[in-house]
Amino acid sequence: MSQTYVKNSSSIHIQELQITDQFWSRYLEIVRKEMIPYQWNVLNDKADITIVKERNDETIPSEKSHAIENFKIAAGLKEGRHYGWVFQDSDVYKWLEAVACSLHHTYDEALKELADEVIDLLELAQEKDGYLNTYFSIEEPERRFKMLAESHELYCAGHYIEAAVAYYETTKNEKALRVACLLADCIDANFGHESGKIKGYDGHEEIELALAKLHQITGERKYLELSKFFLYERGTDPTFFERQRKEDTGKRAVIEGMSHRPLSYYQAHKPILDQESAEGHAVRLVYLCTAMADVAYLSDDKEMLEACRRLWKSIVNKRMYITGGIGSTVDGEAFTSDYDLPNDTMYCETCASIGLIFFAYNMLKNEANGSYADTLERALYNSVISGMALDGKHFFYVNPLEVKPENSETDPGKSHVKVTRPEWFGCACCPPNLARLLTSLNKYIYTIQDDIIYTNLYLANQTSVIVKDIHINLRQETNYPWDGDIKFHIQPDAPATFGLAVRIPSWSKTFKLILNGVEINETSNNGFITIFREWQCNDELVLSLDMSVQEWAANPNVRADLNKVAIQRGPFIYCLEEVDNGENLHLIRIPKNRPFSYRFDNTLFGGVGIIEVNAEKRLVQKEWDNQLYSMDLDEEYEDKKVTFIPYFCWANRSPGEMLVWAAKE
Amino acid sequence: MSQTYVKNSSSIHIQELQITDQFWSRYLEIVRKEMIPYQWNVLNDKADITIVKERNDETIPSEKSHAIENFKIAAGLKEGRHYGWVFQDSDVYKWLEAVACSLHHTYDEALKELADEVIDLLELAQEKDGYLNTYFSIEEPERRFKMLAESHELYCAGHYIEAAVAYYETTKNEKALRVACLLADCIDANFGHESGKIKGYDGHEEIELALAKLHQITGERKYLELSKFFLYERGTDPTFFERQRKEDTGKRAVIEGMSHRPLSYYQAHKPILDQESAEGHAVRLVYLCTAMADVAYLSDDKEMLEACRRLWKSIVNKRMYITGGIGSTVDGEAFTSDYDLPNDTMYCETCASIGLIFFAYNMLKNEANGSYADTLERALYNSVISGMALDGKHFFYVNPLEVKPENSETDPGKSHVKVTRPEWFGCACCPPNLARLLTSLNKYIYTIQDDIIYTNLYLANQTSVIVKDIHINLRQETNYPWDGDIKFHIQPDAPATFGLAVRIPSWSKTFKLILNGVEINETSNNGFITIFREWQCNDELVLSLDMSVQEWAANPNVRADLNKVAIQRGPFIYCLEEVDNGENLHLIRIPKNRPFSYRFDNTLFGGVGIIEVNAEKRLVQKEWDNQLYSMDLDEEYEDKKVTFIPYFCWANRSPGEMLVWAAKE
Repeated sequence: MSQTYVKNSSSIHIQELQITDQFWSRYLEIVRKEMIPYQWNVLNDKADITIVKERNDETIPSEKSHAIENFKIAAGLKEGRHYGWVFQDSDVYKWLEAVACSLHHTYDEALKELADEVIDLLELAQEKDGYLNTYFSIEEPERRFKMLAESHELYCAGHYIEAAVAYYETTKNEKALRVACLLADCIDANFGHESGKIKGYDGHEEIELALAKLHQITGERKYLELSKFFLYERGTDPTFFERQRKEDTGKRAVIEGMSHRPLSYYQAHKPILDQESAEGHAVRLVYLCTAMADVAYLSDDKEMLEACRRLWKSIVNKRMYITGGIGSTVDGEAFTSDYDLPNDTMYCETCASIGLIFFAYNMLKNEANGSYADTLERALYNSVISGMALDGKHFFYVNPLEVKPENSETDPGKSHVKVTRPEWFGCACCPPNLARLLTSLNKYIYTIQDDIIYTNLYLANQTSVIVKDIHINLRQETNYPWDGDIKFHIQPDAPATFGLAVRIPSWSKTFKLILNGVEINETSNNGFITIFREWQCNDELVLSLDMSVQEWAANPNVRADLNKVAIQRGPFIYCLEEVDNGENLHLIRIPKNRPFSYRFDNTLFGGVGIIEVNAEKRLVQKEWDNQLYSMDLDEEYEDKKVTFIPYFCWANRSPGEMLVWAAKE
Repeated sequence: MSQTYVKNSSSIHIQELQITDQFWSRYLEIVRKEMIPYQWNVLNDKADITIVKERNDETIPSEKSHAIENFKIAAGLKEGRHYGWVFQDSDVYKWLEAVACSLHHTYDEALKELADEVIDLLELAQEKDGYLNTYFSIEEPERRFKMLAESHELYCAGHYIEAAVAYYETTKNEKALRVACLLADCIDANFGHESGKIKGYDGHEEIELALAKLHQITGERKYLELSKFFLYERGTDPTFFERQRKEDTGKRAVIEGMSHRPLSYYQAHKPILDQESAEGHAVRLVYLCTAMADVAYLSDDKEMLEACRRLWKSIVNKRMYITGGIGSTVDGEAFTSDYDLPNDTMYCETCASIGLIFFAYNMLKNEANGSYADTLERALYNSVISGMALDGKHFFYVNPLEVKPENSETDPGKSHVKVTRPEWFGCACCPPNLARLLTSLNKYIYTIQDDIIYTNLYLANQTSVIVKDIHINLRQETNYPWDGDIKFHIQPDAPATFGLAVRIPSWSKTFKLILNGVEINETSNNGFITIFREWQCNDELVLSLDMSVQEWAANPNVRADLNKVAIQRGPFIYCLEEVDNGENLHLIRIPKNRPFSYRFDNTLFGGVGIIEVNAEKRLVQKEWDNQLYSMDLDEEYEDKKVTFIPYFCWANRSPGEMLVWAAKE
């Protein structure tokens, strides 16, 4: 297979990257030792867990995944019916992708053999023409590609292709890639402008970004073209889904209760180049954008890149939480309108923030801009890792910025806001999505533009870089995210000329940059400072970021955050929890100009930086006991020292209130 | 028919009451000239209107009421199927009750003939054993009383009985009352402790309060006993609804999507004496309480009265909006938890506030307490009349305290919050409920305890009172609610000894009371001041209330209202509207100690008092254009004169933002 199609004209290539970072190594270990085996048990219905039906308070211990069983039935190895969601297959694919990425960090022969067996099983389940989907193969083969708004067939196919590409990258398992190509060829044979083919697309974007990846690893231009077909076809014919629904002869809904969704839910309300704002289901939107950004990059499509920039700005300038969460409403898990960012009813799905990282990364491939890397970091250190308990076994779908347990119990409009992370979900997209993101973190650290290596993330790692055939050992040494000093060791085998760009995060008001002991005075350009020079062996560049505690205000158009403050230190957004600060967190007020103190607490959560401040708490006078409204009672405050913890650590102790945006004086 | 059963030992009886008040006469005219004829057209499918399906943005012009048609079919006068909700009959009954009450104010022979004809029709639709319900008679006679959680059979029966009692009171139409007694007898024959009878109750309370009324007008003790049976049976057997559902053989749900509601939705989770807080569907709860308070009064049931007091306090001290609205969530149109009073997602159904008035009035029959009368007034002047446009032809179900039109359009969690009043609803409970309340306002002005006449409401009216056979002409002269002076003219035919109690509203910080030109210095007791004396001809008592503009704060436990202020003058809560103050009302801040100015504007809404203040508005600096969050931008304010209008007048001009709770310095 050729890898000839490379748009990037850079002579720089990153060969290998090892993460040596303390903060992230812990996560890699959790994924390898806890999540992957745990998820394997779930997929095989061996786990003794409580599966939680999302959007429903009932816990149903007997509910199962059945995902591997579905493949065995489709493969003809077992008798039985399909069980689970129509997109149940994707859980297996995401697990496989996590395995692929994890093997890159720590090779594990037994795990590889297990994954190879899964590939063997998938090959057996694949139909002669390349079609691969257990629901439709087992239950409704005649309905294949006929209910695309809901069927998730191309969504599942995309997840398999992503997994296969990752698995091939790590293990060179050719069968995995062959199954993927056969599947992509089957799709190519069924979709397109040509007569007899379906001029349509999946209700859930994913195939588009996967085909772009398949193109990159195989060099096959047709996969890129098919991806472009899906992207450009989207939203051009507003009757497509409706026509399929009308012609459908199936006896039951593919997914109950989906037919009322507006076209914007699927980003199918307008052609993609005409979409001015981020609309609809948040995960769908960012998966679409991820594909658009990659295709724009791979085919140098300026119009598509411009459309990506518009949607990016719509998200980060108008519709994103300070934690990197997106999706302001549970109904449709969707965007609503500009500046509508309620803190206690939002969705902020873990998967949506993961998708935002995918989008950010593909934009960074197009152009170096701190906004992309800042947002990537923001989502990663906050909304994304908040999705997992510190034990690696409990997960949030929904990542709120304000929680009062009583409200989750008694207000149906907040029943989706869980107070503790459940073990597993009936719709299990988030945990395996987290696993594959965390194990592929190595890909996000650097991007290359022309002859410059851009540093997007700071974490201890070492990598081999080839610049015009010169081998360079590039190492980051840092105790980030707790400390702001990042030391780059640059060790070329011979002097080499290239740029090394360091990112100045938006939260760092000041910074210092020292090259071989000499301070460099440069201002950042689009969020980066580039040191372009001939690098010598043992060159050392030290970046010191401003790690003081920062107080953020929201745009006054955000009603929910008016007269409130959010606390950040380094990449972490902080929050108040009831266990540290007592109940009624909303009564706490942060006075003006009070100094915050930061200390690293080795005893908490295995070591975490906490922030303290002498704040005030509004008193609820006794006279309020029996009245709701008063003309006479004044506001009274008492001094109260309060403790902030990093947002991602919340809900790892006793359940209680949590608050990101605190009242300010 | 005897009227022997009277608990009240007072020798005082109010004979006749005419409302001469300018403010309320307008409403009585609207009901008579607009609402009653309009609703009659709707009931007969003659109106050229757009019926709005609630909780759905689609307007379905073709949807019809069919309510009268249903009765014609049930009566055998026409062929056809039942159409509409299972409780469609109640629309006719509420219209009939409004007609009855309206005839009291303005006799209209043609209207009476029309109503008489409706009674004739109902008698024809009534089955031999007294059963009356068009849905079950036409569609599913075999399912009668077998799905009480959803069937609304006793709810509809209750509304007919209420209408019949009111119609008999005004017109002495004996047939109306005979149909009611037959219906009640049918229910009595089917429900009770005796073997063979159903030991259960309706999912929607209403029959209980209606039977208490029927008992009072007929003197029949059994109706009171049947009401008590329903009340005391409620919540004792938590399996009752479930058992009926299991045994049900009907082919379709009586009402779709109701079976998942918890028992608390129906107040059937506990026996009524054990219910500590107001739970579930707000209208159901207040209808239950209305019946409890009346039965407690009629049968001197101290335990039940204590239960009423508990539920009353739960509502007004913990779960009521400052407008008198109740129901914090759209999902179940229900209460949630203490102090959970969001201003923009709540339900605050017009009918629920009307029910709160019923409850308050029945509590006033038990005991004179300003809390009941204050709340009655609060709901009446704010949440209730906000339910109707000033033209009398458009209605709100939902009465929000904060509206941003964009959010109602784009956030499904706020799609129930309408920005303009629609013409009619598919579930048309609120408009006829409003009509019957407004036309029966005369009943709420005074209550009698022992030898004291308590004044609950201030409005120009005159009435005849008999005290120990002495006839007294009692007149209120006032320009209330705009002015705070109320002049009572007391003209007994001969000197008469009794108490006249005036209410000192909680919003009136000071007051002055002058009897025949001499100031009286008394402090209020439970919200009332009682002048007990021998009244002479031409006695004059003048009460002057404090009509200065008041600023209210909410209990700090109410998160939604923290650091906000609500403006009240007299009984009216005020609000800001976009049409007066521009967009982004949330950026307006009311500074401390700024004087409010009040003036009566004859040109606005046909004459209404408005409040102005020199406030401040937060600037959204240009730098905010392209960012959501900032560490650097300070708060800046500009002076801005703002105008408050009475809350009930909102949404009568161009659609836009509205806000009750404004930010304060």
